[in-house]
Amino acid sequence: MNHDRRDRLRDAAIAVLAREGGRGLTHRAVDAAAAVPTGTAKNYFPTRDALLRAAAERCAEQYHALAEALAPTGPEQGAGPASAPGAGAGAGPGAGAEPGSGPAGVARLAALLAALLRDTAGPGRTRVLAYLELQAEAARRPWLAELLDPVAAADFAAHAHLLRAAGLPAGPARVRALTLALHGAIPHLLTGAPATLAAAGLDDLDRFTRELLAVVCEEESR
Amino acid sequence: MNHDRRDRLRDAAIAVLAREGGRGLTHRAVDAAAAVPTGTAKNYFPTRDALLRAAAERCAEQYHALAEALAPTGPEQGAGPASAPGAGAGAGPGAGAEPGSGPAGVARLAALLAALLRDTAGPGRTRVLAYLELQAEAARRPWLAELLDPVAAADFAAHAHLLRAAGLPAGPARVRALTLALHGAIPHLLTGAPATLAAAGLDDLDRFTRELLAVVCEEESR
Repeated sequence: MNHDRRDRLRDAAIAVLAREGGRGLTHRAVDAAAAVPTGTAKNYFPTRDALLRAAAERCAEQYHALAEALAPTGPEQGAGPASAPGAGAGAGPGAGAEPGSGPAGVARLAALLAALLRDTAGPGRTRVLAYLELQAEAARRPWLAELLDPVAAADFAAHAHLLRAAGLPAGPARVRALTLALHGAIPHLLTGAPATLAAAGLDDLDRFTRELLAVVCEEESR
Repeated sequence: MNHDRRDRLRDAAIAVLAREGGRGLTHRAVDAAAAVPTGTAKNYFPTRDALLRAAAERCAEQYHALAEALAPTGPEQGAGPASAPGAGAGAGPGAGAEPGSGPAGVARLAALLAALLRDTAGPGRTRVLAYLELQAEAARRPWLAELLDPVAAADFAAHAHLLRAAGLPAGPARVRALTLALHGAIPHLLTGAPATLAAAGLDDLDRFTRELLAVVCEEESR
């Protein structure tokens, strides 16, 4: 097993999923996208389900790398994951805001979430499109749903963590509203249809995440 | 043009999309699903794009029928759309609650939203799966994005209307958080993966919509 080649094929599978949709994911298409001899993908991933699994595992790996970069572990946490260029753009690297709680922590969290959404429609577009295709396939394939389940579930825990780190209330109902609203934003960002973007407030991502945090974390009854 | 047959083909296109994904939508598959002679779908919808358009327009029609049934126009509004069996289950038809504002209006709205989510994973599953496939295709086809744009945008206006009718604050940031959280819930409901459903609170839809409304409509800063 050549691990570089394996990863190259898995990246190609993600690219094919993003470009062609779930049904377009064939061994031949992956070979072509990876620029390897015909038959290579079949050697590494003998069935179409194995290809889907490889793409799903690659997405999960990328997600975990992102989540790890996201997790507040030290004073540099606020700078955001390396895979989300532009993270922290709202607060600015030299804005003097300490990560952690208080208004500065909230502003930094809003900027980080905005940067992640920006990544969705920008450099991360291929990964996110592939993930949506896998999600659609998962509605028809229980084994794939099982594979993706911990990935999606972990997102709620990650957001709870981020809210707490910013000193915001992080009860389950708030975490759910925030996480689901961010999930709901993703297809609209990928489609980029103007009336929907405007209605959703996604035409200004910094304002969007600031307002979303304000709505979801208003302190009163919960 | 036989309108019954046309609608039958459009329903078949939706069924094929839901079952096979975007790439599975072929004239032959639609003919088979509609149980009509080979070539019929091609007569009505000559290209694959025409098929996609037919399915998208059918989804939009069904959406408008739903939205119309949803719109509060009289004392019976709270009973919910006919296409969402179980609507109003939370408040109960004989609960004596008048539609409109106040706690009864809020409970009725929560029950209606729960019933709509229940429909997504139940009787409406085919329609919603097809819509998600169209949404994924729209990220690759600008003309399809344009077709779906007003449908998705109208959802925000519909929710603003419902919040106001229930006497709840309905500023843009609240409407966006509510609408996007509901949109974000849909793929998770269709996949039905247990850890994600539990993390999202979607294992109890009545509680979910009650808590979502409480979080999104807390009155304070906005």
